[in-house]
Amino acid sequence: MTDFISKLQAIVGERGLILDEPGKHPYLTDWRENYLGAALAVVRPATTEEVAAVVKLCIAEKVAIVPQGGNTGMMGGGTPHPQGREIVLSLNRMNRIVEVDTIGYTMTVEAGVVLKIIQETAAQHDRLFPLSLAAEGSCTIGGNLSTNAGGVQVLHYGNARQLVLGLEVVTPQGEVWNGLRALKKDNTGYDLRDLYLGAEGTLGIITKAVLKLWPKPKDIATSWIAVPSPEAAVALLSGAHAASEDNVTSCELMARQGVDLVLQHIPGSADPLSERHDWYVLLEWSSTRPRRAGANETGLLEKMEAYLGEAMEQGLVLDAALAQNEAQAKAFWALRENHSESQKREGPSIKHDISVSVSKIPAFMSEGLTAMKKVLPECRPVPFGHVGDGNLHFNCQAPAGWDKPRFMAHAHDISTAVYDIVVRYGGSISAEHGIGQMKVEELAHYRSKIELDTMRAIKRALDPQNLMNPGKILDLSV
Amino acid sequence: MTDFISKLQAIVGERGLILDEPGKHPYLTDWRENYLGAALAVVRPATTEEVAAVVKLCIAEKVAIVPQGGNTGMMGGGTPHPQGREIVLSLNRMNRIVEVDTIGYTMTVEAGVVLKIIQETAAQHDRLFPLSLAAEGSCTIGGNLSTNAGGVQVLHYGNARQLVLGLEVVTPQGEVWNGLRALKKDNTGYDLRDLYLGAEGTLGIITKAVLKLWPKPKDIATSWIAVPSPEAAVALLSGAHAASEDNVTSCELMARQGVDLVLQHIPGSADPLSERHDWYVLLEWSSTRPRRAGANETGLLEKMEAYLGEAMEQGLVLDAALAQNEAQAKAFWALRENHSESQKREGPSIKHDISVSVSKIPAFMSEGLTAMKKVLPECRPVPFGHVGDGNLHFNCQAPAGWDKPRFMAHAHDISTAVYDIVVRYGGSISAEHGIGQMKVEELAHYRSKIELDTMRAIKRALDPQNLMNPGKILDLSV
Repeated sequence: MTDFISKLQAIVGERGLILDEPGKHPYLTDWRENYLGAALAVVRPATTEEVAAVVKLCIAEKVAIVPQGGNTGMMGGGTPHPQGREIVLSLNRMNRIVEVDTIGYTMTVEAGVVLKIIQETAAQHDRLFPLSLAAEGSCTIGGNLSTNAGGVQVLHYGNARQLVLGLEVVTPQGEVWNGLRALKKDNTGYDLRDLYLGAEGTLGIITKAVLKLWPKPKDIATSWIAVPSPEAAVALLSGAHAASEDNVTSCELMARQGVDLVLQHIPGSADPLSERHDWYVLLEWSSTRPRRAGANETGLLEKMEAYLGEAMEQGLVLDAALAQNEAQAKAFWALRENHSESQKREGPSIKHDISVSVSKIPAFMSEGLTAMKKVLPECRPVPFGHVGDGNLHFNCQAPAGWDKPRFMAHAHDISTAVYDIVVRYGGSISAEHGIGQMKVEELAHYRSKIELDTMRAIKRALDPQNLMNPGKILDLSV
Repeated sequence: MTDFISKLQAIVGERGLILDEPGKHPYLTDWRENYLGAALAVVRPATTEEVAAVVKLCIAEKVAIVPQGGNTGMMGGGTPHPQGREIVLSLNRMNRIVEVDTIGYTMTVEAGVVLKIIQETAAQHDRLFPLSLAAEGSCTIGGNLSTNAGGVQVLHYGNARQLVLGLEVVTPQGEVWNGLRALKKDNTGYDLRDLYLGAEGTLGIITKAVLKLWPKPKDIATSWIAVPSPEAAVALLSGAHAASEDNVTSCELMARQGVDLVLQHIPGSADPLSERHDWYVLLEWSSTRPRRAGANETGLLEKMEAYLGEAMEQGLVLDAALAQNEAQAKAFWALRENHSESQKREGPSIKHDISVSVSKIPAFMSEGLTAMKKVLPECRPVPFGHVGDGNLHFNCQAPAGWDKPRFMAHAHDISTAVYDIVVRYGGSISAEHGIGQMKVEELAHYRSKIELDTMRAIKRALDPQNLMNPGKILDLSV
């Protein structure tokens, strides 16, 4: 045991340290298995004070730190470099709910709490924490905040950034910044909170957060809808705002290709409709107003049914199934949420997590699909995403039977073709997944010099030794 | 004409330069007349390129810049120092509406557009820009964004920060950062937008913004309500969320003292109620759903009337007047919006723009009023504010007949007494007005060393020559 390791152990104890290779392995590779890193140790502090002490030790020993939450990221942001000179600092032992304030509509949590636990805790208190995404059973809130996660309810509640009031952060100096404020208004200097949110652990380590809660919805309507085109999906959403009285909480678009992969790979999946269609929308409306009995009161489900009936007459809807109970709604959601998992089981794929303004989705979709096919005619596009916020997962599955190296030889050309269109549409090359290590070059290519210079100046000012997740988001060597 | 001045004139032309003392005067003092500064020149560029050129010249000549919008700030943030070695850079000639996108619900504007013009332009397009505050007839959007303004609709729509999608900023290097993105999701590196927002011109000059728009409300109900106490006001708001079906857009609390000042100083003001009461609430509900005819449909006004009737039975309401038309609603609003103006006309006052969590308002109010009276028994507290977001203007009027120097001798003690309580309640010493030059010492006193060090590191990294509004927010000499 080296001197450094014994000092680590003095801080976090035996339980807080993983040194053997099989034990370290799950922390050294990402969910998509794109990267395999190495680390001196996996360190799992149990308190903020332990995190701060580990950081101070790492400063003294000049060892870089890769903060890690649930390790469900798509961009390799939580995976160490292969040289093995870093430590992985996992927050997964800091998993306590510190406080639930039902009157103030806030919940204070440690960074390592799994998102699903937060959702369930809120529900037990008749409250809602609206962040919801496919990885919710294993991702942690610290990772969600460090990547400013999006998910399926952004159009109504906003990104992770909008769901937070305060943070506690261990800085690159090993100091604890107590920004755990539960205030709706606070104009006292620079907005450090929003700087740490989405910084992917490169400016400090989020250790606690004060989250916002909402009233729990009492009436939810969910439907699985076949639509003729992305244009129809956008028009369907546009009308839904008024028809639902501003209660649209999700509007997800999927192509048949992705649904087919789910039906094929996920046991128990079933197509809710009898015929095959090219495009589907999963539409959900939620209201905090309970459904009441009485002739003059209509619930959301009846309103949605009436709206879809009108939309069918206008040709915006081809067929639709309305969930009659929670189990059906869950089955519809599983078809959407299992897209990534079934893409993984099918084989190699490239992901493009892009956004354009909502009204440009149809034109972008058409141009983007053509461009991908032009680069590699055999490729299988799997586009899906969040219509309400312009964020598309514009993914591309390898041709059937191709292995990863053969497909990846085309990855750069396919991605460049897609991103060039995105930029032309004024869009973003990373809408919700962040940059990690995967998109460092793309960010440098597509963003202006002054923007990159400003980001680098901030990074250098706050982390002068470059010990916090180095090489992620920005390449400082230029 | 010095060499520097002729170079300035070469950039902005004669129309863009004010050199004579009477012409400069309005730019050298703040609205509250707490500060009188001096400046080499008042420079009024007409384009972003001119702003950038002025900044580059100032870098070369080592002249500091005080950016200024409508000059309605409360904290002296836009007023130059008295030494006269700075220039005031006014954005008031950059007052063009660049684009209104009704489908995408955005408006792109130059920084110098007056807030009221933005509100009116949105309304002409059947849209709402919800930022609304007393100074809206003369404040400009650049100043609103640089101070992260709050106002009377924050509880429903959020602070200025939440109303912006993208920014254009001239950096301290004189470069133009084009962050004019109209995207709801964009996770590509550090959140520069939120760093510039609320930075009070110390990190760069906001020159353009992409603002978010909302549907225009079609049904608005406004009432002027006498309540027995701040406790009752908080309880009244708490019940109003459900009763209005989440349509509460404003909930303003006022003490009789402030209303008396308005009635006394503002011609045409009238008390909507026949008897005197100690506390008032201005409550407004808005919905995008038009009021429809028909027996089964009730508008917001009827719902509000029913709710206030119930609240009266519970003792939460003593008396109430419901606005029967827009003119009456405007008259109610004038009683609230003229608080600052009538305080100014009455004589010297101290302002405390504080926030606590909503549920703590009553306890804070009671403790704070006692503390002010203890320091100076003759003082006249004028508390009012935004119940829905915990932000109180916990102001204090000088005793009748006292002049400014006599009153100001007690200002420090009164403020310290108030802020100490705020901090004990976990609150903010500047909820919406910012820091400017007035609260630099307080910020340094009440915030942690690591927070101040982090802010200073950012400032030094982005503005190494300290030319952007030096001495505001932070004292860099420590």
